[in-house]
Amino acid sequence: MTTATPRLEIEYCTQCRWLLRGAWTAQELLTTFQDELGEVALIPGTGGVFEIRLDGEPLYSRAQQKGFPELAELKRLVRDRIAPQRSLGHSERRSDRA
Amino acid sequence: MTTATPRLEIEYCTQCRWLLRGAWTAQELLTTFQDELGEVALIPGTGGVFEIRLDGEPLYSRAQQKGFPELAELKRLVRDRIAPQRSLGHSERRSDRA
Repeated sequence: MTTATPRLEIEYCTQCRWLLRGAWTAQELLTTFQDELGEVALIPGTGGVFEIRLDGEPLYSRAQQKGFPELAELKRLVRDRIAPQRSLGHSERRSDRA
Repeated sequence: MTTATPRLEIEYCTQCRWLLRGAWTAQELLTTFQDELGEVALIPGTGGVFEIRLDGEPLYSRAQQKGFPELAELKRLVRDRIAPQRSLGHSERRSDRA
């Protein structure tokens, strides 16, 4: 089946009730990158999974990073890959950029 | 790119600011069909589009149906295709089932 690219995937654990967290993340990314993202897919999972992938490549994994993504950092990760010339505004003036 | 099936797509018009409407619809369907749906993809579009597709087949189109889907009806359409044996509870006791 054809999908719109760039395709961002958010796989979340339904047992952990992380749908709202995933959907919130999806809406934040679609608000910021509405002209750059092809689609954001919400994927029900199990076993504590919370993973974010961009065109199949892991961008964030709760299992590896031991927590949830900080949204400003997540937007920078997405931006660096799909819209490197884009400024993210005030969140980038902070000195905590990796 | 591989996708999880059944795949439900929600294409919404960004110019019309229908992201929240689409995301709400996505969350409702993922709440009801968390074990049956493979994924729900939110797809930014333009020109007044609000379309819902299941594995590529049109399920609902604002252009054709002249409005937005009533959620109980939409859930019945999805249920009939991916989980025909499922009861949708109290919303089905109403007499307005098509």
